[in-house]
Amino acid sequence: MASFTLQGIPVSRGIAIGRAHLLHPAALEVQHYLVGQEQVEAEVQRLQKALAEAERELQKIWSDLPTDAPSELGAFLDVHSLFLSDPMLAQAPLEIIRTRHYNAEWALVTQIDVLLAQFDEIEDEYLRERKADIAQVADRILKLLTGTANTLPKHAGVDELNAHMIVVARDISPADMMQFQDSAFVGFVTDEGGHSAHTAIVSRSLGIPAVVGMGNASHLIKQDDWLIIDSVAGVVIVAPPQIVLDEYRAKLADLQKFRKKLAKLKKTSAVTKDGTPISLLANIELPEHAVAANEVGAAGVGLFRSEFLFMGRNGVLPTEEEQFEAYKTSVAAMKGRPVTIRTLDVGADKPLDEADNQTLNPALGLRAIRYCLAEPQLFLTQLRAILRASAFGPVQILIPMLSHGFEIDQTLGMIEQAKHQLALQNIAFDANIKIGAMIEIPAAVLSLPMFVKKLDFLSIGTNDLIQYTLAIDRADYAVAHLYDDVHPAILQLLDMTVKAANKADIPVSICGGMAGDIRLTRLLLGMGFRALSMPPAQLLEIKQEVMNIDLMELNAPIKKILRSYDSEVIEEGIRHLKTL
Amino acid sequence: MASFTLQGIPVSRGIAIGRAHLLHPAALEVQHYLVGQEQVEAEVQRLQKALAEAERELQKIWSDLPTDAPSELGAFLDVHSLFLSDPMLAQAPLEIIRTRHYNAEWALVTQIDVLLAQFDEIEDEYLRERKADIAQVADRILKLLTGTANTLPKHAGVDELNAHMIVVARDISPADMMQFQDSAFVGFVTDEGGHSAHTAIVSRSLGIPAVVGMGNASHLIKQDDWLIIDSVAGVVIVAPPQIVLDEYRAKLADLQKFRKKLAKLKKTSAVTKDGTPISLLANIELPEHAVAANEVGAAGVGLFRSEFLFMGRNGVLPTEEEQFEAYKTSVAAMKGRPVTIRTLDVGADKPLDEADNQTLNPALGLRAIRYCLAEPQLFLTQLRAILRASAFGPVQILIPMLSHGFEIDQTLGMIEQAKHQLALQNIAFDANIKIGAMIEIPAAVLSLPMFVKKLDFLSIGTNDLIQYTLAIDRADYAVAHLYDDVHPAILQLLDMTVKAANKADIPVSICGGMAGDIRLTRLLLGMGFRALSMPPAQLLEIKQEVMNIDLMELNAPIKKILRSYDSEVIEEGIRHLKTL
Repeated sequence: MASFTLQGIPVSRGIAIGRAHLLHPAALEVQHYLVGQEQVEAEVQRLQKALAEAERELQKIWSDLPTDAPSELGAFLDVHSLFLSDPMLAQAPLEIIRTRHYNAEWALVTQIDVLLAQFDEIEDEYLRERKADIAQVADRILKLLTGTANTLPKHAGVDELNAHMIVVARDISPADMMQFQDSAFVGFVTDEGGHSAHTAIVSRSLGIPAVVGMGNASHLIKQDDWLIIDSVAGVVIVAPPQIVLDEYRAKLADLQKFRKKLAKLKKTSAVTKDGTPISLLANIELPEHAVAANEVGAAGVGLFRSEFLFMGRNGVLPTEEEQFEAYKTSVAAMKGRPVTIRTLDVGADKPLDEADNQTLNPALGLRAIRYCLAEPQLFLTQLRAILRASAFGPVQILIPMLSHGFEIDQTLGMIEQAKHQLALQNIAFDANIKIGAMIEIPAAVLSLPMFVKKLDFLSIGTNDLIQYTLAIDRADYAVAHLYDDVHPAILQLLDMTVKAANKADIPVSICGGMAGDIRLTRLLLGMGFRALSMPPAQLLEIKQEVMNIDLMELNAPIKKILRSYDSEVIEEGIRHLKTL
Repeated sequence: MASFTLQGIPVSRGIAIGRAHLLHPAALEVQHYLVGQEQVEAEVQRLQKALAEAERELQKIWSDLPTDAPSELGAFLDVHSLFLSDPMLAQAPLEIIRTRHYNAEWALVTQIDVLLAQFDEIEDEYLRERKADIAQVADRILKLLTGTANTLPKHAGVDELNAHMIVVARDISPADMMQFQDSAFVGFVTDEGGHSAHTAIVSRSLGIPAVVGMGNASHLIKQDDWLIIDSVAGVVIVAPPQIVLDEYRAKLADLQKFRKKLAKLKKTSAVTKDGTPISLLANIELPEHAVAANEVGAAGVGLFRSEFLFMGRNGVLPTEEEQFEAYKTSVAAMKGRPVTIRTLDVGADKPLDEADNQTLNPALGLRAIRYCLAEPQLFLTQLRAILRASAFGPVQILIPMLSHGFEIDQTLGMIEQAKHQLALQNIAFDANIKIGAMIEIPAAVLSLPMFVKKLDFLSIGTNDLIQYTLAIDRADYAVAHLYDDVHPAILQLLDMTVKAANKADIPVSICGGMAGDIRLTRLLLGMGFRALSMPPAQLLEIKQEVMNIDLMELNAPIKKILRSYDSEVIEEGIRHLKTL
């Protein structure tokens, strides 16, 4: 087939080469893994058992129907039974397990997608909508499969065909993405701008190249197509000719060499030419990511996104004990360097249970600290777990989405309450633990005197701050052209924040996307920032840049940038900084 | 039955007394009117004809099915046929037309709601979801009814039972609400926070009391319950005892007397005690609202929300000629007083076709000027229509949602282009027409030097400005407790805007909800605002307040308010202003 190239928004830098693995929405919610040859027949039997059980359930509903139930209802049950005994559903998925070694759930949803595609071709819209029944039958079977999953080691049978797969989907949620941590998956391509920007966070954390906002890539790309993701350029090359494939394989090798070279900077201090030390910290999502933070010599964890401990658990919350273990593991791994734990940032925009989400504008809804204050038991549990971990090394608490004075007061009150509960049980914690606020809502910057008075440190979440200040959903492709991290308004807000923090003599850092963007390192340091927190994968490159900066040279050009309200002047000024 | 009281968010002030008229989502999309006695049998026949035609359609689909179609499909068609011949669907709606004089569509959806409620009681979730089939059958019939609507005068047969109805719904969109302009409807009650804040705008424009965010009112209130809406207190009293009913009838009479008294202020100038003239302007949605603006002696139209000309038209855009006539009518009605027309503010958050809306965070999406710049032909058509109206009296153009310098430049360029097109055709317009920006995105306030350099005037849209600055969806009940129009951050932004406009010597007004809130009139005038635009229904009360204000007395207390970052101090300060 002919090669073609698609353009999108790169969210995680790098190059990936592999075969397309297409996923449709239904397929996203189930586990994906390959079973070993010796496990295939057991997996086939697992699915057969679920199919038989589903049929028994339908029969039971039939017999339990009240005698006065509308007569039409029986007809619907019949239709579901018909589907269940159709070879397309009863046989085809078993073959997929045998030939491709997919686990039962994955095999089932793969076949369901084939069936649904057939329905799409039907002209009458009422019949077309019968797709819902197929989905319902599938759902019934999937529920029965749950809990019987294969517990043998996964991907025991990875072979050449399955070795390097690039996931292609309409959209993918952060929790779904984490189901693809299997080393067989080397890249992500999605049609939409990303279920939320947190999809981007996960792909960066996994260190896996990803391009989002690709329009209708999931329709244009076919199963098993060869793909190249060049997420520096933001393109996906479909079915590349051999010469392009060879070129990119060479690029990939170069990139790996460059990363090896950077790795030598691990133990070097991040100090500017003029001798100013800069604190380069790591953003992590799970305790095991602390390993990656150490590998690049991070000065600490500037942002532990605790919500990832809560995701992909079907709404079951982690206990205080589970959380404590996770936080303690991170603290231990960082060996005396500070760990800043952000309290739960879920809610309307990142629901724990996706079915719950009914809000029209989730980004402007009940999320983060707003959600935690509305769920005090959940919040207290997390606070106790964090406090307990603070007995094992330096820990700070970071509160997301604060905007009102009374929210700060309530939050501090709950931290006191958690301390009191622990003290009563004689459980150790750091009584002087520092509490900081994420500065990510415009209102917070515009009322900084209130924040610096009540809190110990500030950390700017640039992604959300830009989103609200410009009224741009960062995951909405339709307004991606308006996303501008150096809009004069954003630079004013950053400037106001660093000045207010310095005046109050409290630490301030940046932990949003701008902190890890090498294009902006000189700008941020020149504005006065001395602490940047970013994904570990970006830290060494930023360190190399820091070591090339002479802060004295930046003063005058930075002043000129901050005085301007003309985006072209600002862009030109930033380019000029790179030449100094 | 026992009386009870429900609490919600008042969006339109006043008192209404009437019987509950329950509406479910399906019911919202159809026309609601009462047919005269002599029209009843014609209406019955119209519905019978549609039912027969729907059955013929189903038979045709049956016979057109391809021979290799999945065998299950026939079963679905049978179910739909069964529904169609069921007396619950074939007979009951005809009785509703005969007894209640509803039009055919209304009668049909009323009965569909009854059927759907029966399904809700079924326990098995798959059967319960068969509701979708009922809705599909209803949809088929409704489509057949379209185009055959009764063209005789509406509500010819209003009787006592139907005379004062209060619409109770889960939610209601602005376009749907405008279907209830019939004088038989005296109030609105909704469970949700309002489909968008524009629901509130419409109810204020119609001068009809409304309370939103009532939780599950539409489940607790029964059809034909007596209701009292007290939207000053934000409560709805259900099935009130006679003594309460009498009390509220007396209150309603008092309110009408107070309004009569205020009406005498119509020709009085809005001047403060110290002799400062204040410009009190009207917000209107349709040309016919200019009458209401004149009735209260508005100094002009400060905000003509042109998007309402585009709504409820099933996505068919108004032509240049239709728009020109609407704008010209408003200009003529205002008799030489200025009319400020805001260009189309639709898009992701207020889609012209609701089915189009797939955006996750529409408020942060492609809306207003962003949408217009992406649809240049639509925008040019509107600009030409506005420009042509400017030949008939003073007109200003107001651009919503600007945040970037290049958007301002593109917009001014398109206005020049529209002028050029008219000039080529020798069509008259005001060559010096003033162009202004809505200040409603935080980024706009934070880059005011850019705005005052390029534009002729500013108008602050406080509703959106608060929404983005606090990251609060104003229609989301879950975060209603965080909505604070006097948050220190908001006061800072208002202060920055009035100072920048005064320094640049260009006019600035407020046209958001704060302008019509009598609690804030002293604060806004004291801060330096001299022009407020609001719904006509609020203008005379605000004028009375203006006439009681001595600006000199406000200076010191206002300075104290603006220096504070403590919400309690601010609230206390505002209360203190009222005592001066």
